[in-house]
Amino acid sequence: MAEKKLVEEITSMDVDFTQWYTDVVKKAELMDYSSIKGCMIFKPNGYAIWENIQRLLDARFKATGVENVYLPLFIPESLLQKEKDHVEGFAPEAAWVTHGGNEELVERLAVRPTSETLFCDLYHNIVQSYRDLPKVYNQWCSVVRWEKTTRPFLRSSEFLWQEGHTAHATAEEAEERTLQMLNVYADFCEQDLAIPMIKGRKTDKEKFAGAEATYTIEALMHDGKALQSGTSHNFGDGFAHAYDITYTDKDNRLSYVHQTSWGVSTRLIGALIMVHGDDSGLVLPPHVAPVQVMIVPIRQDADGVADAAGGVKDALIKAGLRANVDLSDKRPGWKFAEAEMRGIPLRIEIGPKDVESGQCVLVRRDTREKVTVAIADAPQKAAELLETIQQDMLERAKKHLESHIYDAHTYEEFTDAVENKPGFIRAMWCGEEACELKIKEDTTATSRCMPFEQERIADTCVCCGKPAKKLVYWGKAY
Amino acid sequence: MAEKKLVEEITSMDVDFTQWYTDVVKKAELMDYSSIKGCMIFKPNGYAIWENIQRLLDARFKATGVENVYLPLFIPESLLQKEKDHVEGFAPEAAWVTHGGNEELVERLAVRPTSETLFCDLYHNIVQSYRDLPKVYNQWCSVVRWEKTTRPFLRSSEFLWQEGHTAHATAEEAEERTLQMLNVYADFCEQDLAIPMIKGRKTDKEKFAGAEATYTIEALMHDGKALQSGTSHNFGDGFAHAYDITYTDKDNRLSYVHQTSWGVSTRLIGALIMVHGDDSGLVLPPHVAPVQVMIVPIRQDADGVADAAGGVKDALIKAGLRANVDLSDKRPGWKFAEAEMRGIPLRIEIGPKDVESGQCVLVRRDTREKVTVAIADAPQKAAELLETIQQDMLERAKKHLESHIYDAHTYEEFTDAVENKPGFIRAMWCGEEACELKIKEDTTATSRCMPFEQERIADTCVCCGKPAKKLVYWGKAY
Repeated sequence: MAEKKLVEEITSMDVDFTQWYTDVVKKAELMDYSSIKGCMIFKPNGYAIWENIQRLLDARFKATGVENVYLPLFIPESLLQKEKDHVEGFAPEAAWVTHGGNEELVERLAVRPTSETLFCDLYHNIVQSYRDLPKVYNQWCSVVRWEKTTRPFLRSSEFLWQEGHTAHATAEEAEERTLQMLNVYADFCEQDLAIPMIKGRKTDKEKFAGAEATYTIEALMHDGKALQSGTSHNFGDGFAHAYDITYTDKDNRLSYVHQTSWGVSTRLIGALIMVHGDDSGLVLPPHVAPVQVMIVPIRQDADGVADAAGGVKDALIKAGLRANVDLSDKRPGWKFAEAEMRGIPLRIEIGPKDVESGQCVLVRRDTREKVTVAIADAPQKAAELLETIQQDMLERAKKHLESHIYDAHTYEEFTDAVENKPGFIRAMWCGEEACELKIKEDTTATSRCMPFEQERIADTCVCCGKPAKKLVYWGKAY
Repeated sequence: MAEKKLVEEITSMDVDFTQWYTDVVKKAELMDYSSIKGCMIFKPNGYAIWENIQRLLDARFKATGVENVYLPLFIPESLLQKEKDHVEGFAPEAAWVTHGGNEELVERLAVRPTSETLFCDLYHNIVQSYRDLPKVYNQWCSVVRWEKTTRPFLRSSEFLWQEGHTAHATAEEAEERTLQMLNVYADFCEQDLAIPMIKGRKTDKEKFAGAEATYTIEALMHDGKALQSGTSHNFGDGFAHAYDITYTDKDNRLSYVHQTSWGVSTRLIGALIMVHGDDSGLVLPPHVAPVQVMIVPIRQDADGVADAAGGVKDALIKAGLRANVDLSDKRPGWKFAEAEMRGIPLRIEIGPKDVESGQCVLVRRDTREKVTVAIADAPQKAAELLETIQQDMLERAKKHLESHIYDAHTYEEFTDAVENKPGFIRAMWCGEEACELKIKEDTTATSRCMPFEQERIADTCVCCGKPAKKLVYWGKAY
């Protein structure tokens, strides 16, 4: 049967999670490889998810006073080099433009890997007085970091993201903005992506090149691996010194600004797939699903069926839902499988008998529960069910997260957990990079973050036995 | 007076239109030069206009079945070279990436100047059967064409645009889509940007590199120069042959697809400035104005004034308008001048006496007409006035266009018109490129388009005197 074939072509996630992921991306038609090494193509189903993420996140940004801008794609090498740590972090993976038209450039240009340096150059030019502060700018764009290996949404030479860059009069205000945006990310992920996050601070080893402090949100994928899902950096006045960004305060004294930057990327789509997906394909939270309800007519050539299906679609759209009807010449079972593969949260089935009795059947993608309702009630019931699905998906993801956090008090417990218990490991740490390196060397696990909610589950470092300073979440990560 | 200074710094458009344009861009804080030659910075006021253009145009696209995608930034040189005319048109102005990270690339990559070749590569891979057609894809992105000279919004090495690329089973369907999208552009420009367009076909000399036919919308700027504002191309099956894009039809025969592409760019913002602006700055049509109503309190420290202003703002926002209140410590006159400079369509003044009498004053940006209304009626009155402004701006632009179209029957009339009558010149043409070249050489005017509404105003070519084939709009152009 055709409908079985579509599903059979997906590897089960329990058999091979990596292959399952690749299969879902391909069969749900989210992304495709391009003929440019390391670069991906966002197909309509994948890009439409990104558009919803953009729309919802951008509204959250603007509610906090963010203004959108667009800065150039290119960074002159000399500009990139002004901040020592930053250039060391990014120059090795930059793509370099050396020729414009038929002429060799006097100075080569990096295709932006991130735009701190450009925003610094801008702020250097436009910030003079305290009246010019704060600057809270953001841009939606693509960035390029030359990668040898590619995984759809998770790692590619070019990816889409937003990068916020702010300048403030005081250190306190910069720290406040850094944490504010981390919370915007966490709230968005929880409320709209149905993905709970562990919030915390990165260790110095893991922080952004040039930052004083990096904060992160970390999610747990279905296979127990962590995914860094968004970061927010406080630069202090380091970049301001390197790029000479000063302002005169109310008392006419010259001060350096304090800066932040923060970003999330199309990685979030990878998180959606790996947190919510199942062996039938994608499962999308209703808030970001490009199509929320797919109506599938049964015996669509029978009297009144196509009309009734179209009527339901119109009523749903009128009610503000994103609905479509599948009138293709495929069999209903195949259409069911396709809608499931694409992760459409709700399916409505409507056949000749339903038309007769004025009813239709609503089927949830996440639980496959069915409920029969009067056609006239379909819009209201669908809207309610979508919100229920959204909440239930979050609850399930929370339970999965909570049941995959393990405390390790000894190194033996730690290494055992990394090997046998996929998930986050909570363990105390002395604060030394040497222990992070040893743990990574021994287990491949890395420090994910020092959670904001600190506890003292032991007195000594899980690795070296010296006095413990911080509770850290550890884990294998994408 | 401070408020006078802001305005005085703008050159009058009648004195020096070019300088006026640059002044408006700078003083309205739309755009800034960057330290990368040829690249511009979109500042918040400028980018917000682009966001509104994107939102409105994208909705129009999607209503016709367009799906958004995102393709890579880079094009391998070998891929660019497959279509002969196309590579000749674009390779000379491409920016070339030669190094990724620390390694020299085996093949250099062009930063996309336009993405026909990438879409062809994609369609080659994903189109097999008639069931896969049509493909109606679009992407919003930036493109790079190496330019020596820069003018904000009109000419820069990198600019923002959308590019639609479609593939169809038949030549008829491709032609239909080409014209459909040109009409989408023209309707959008007329209804949302309040800019009337001349629609027509480009001569072979002016058509897109690789196209069978290029259609264009041409607008007339305040100084009488034309601005090509959007183009839609029918490629026939030329690219399909070069990139081997075939499908099997219902009878299992192999056929080549027929393709189109179409785009508008941030040039449209240049058109907005040059069609509607005046000596006080920008004048924005309400549909795309980032802020539609600016509320300026008079004596904002007086009892109840700031509160009343805030209340009006909230009521306007609740009514669906984009409103803001200027509570800065500047003088009211300065705030008026700033709101005018930014082109905000409507200003609301509210002072202590107004608060007492429950009134406020609405001031139109375009005509400066004032009307006093009850505070409670402000949202409804503002909404009405904004729509009136939108319509009046279109009417004024139409009148300007119509009064700047001149018919030339002889070459003397033609050269006289180019010199003394800024605007479009309608004249008959024999169809030979030699006459286009001579006219450009003699007058700097170029053929803008062969309008869809053809007339026969003379029997012979205005240039060579041979039998006339087409009525052509000519003009100096940006």
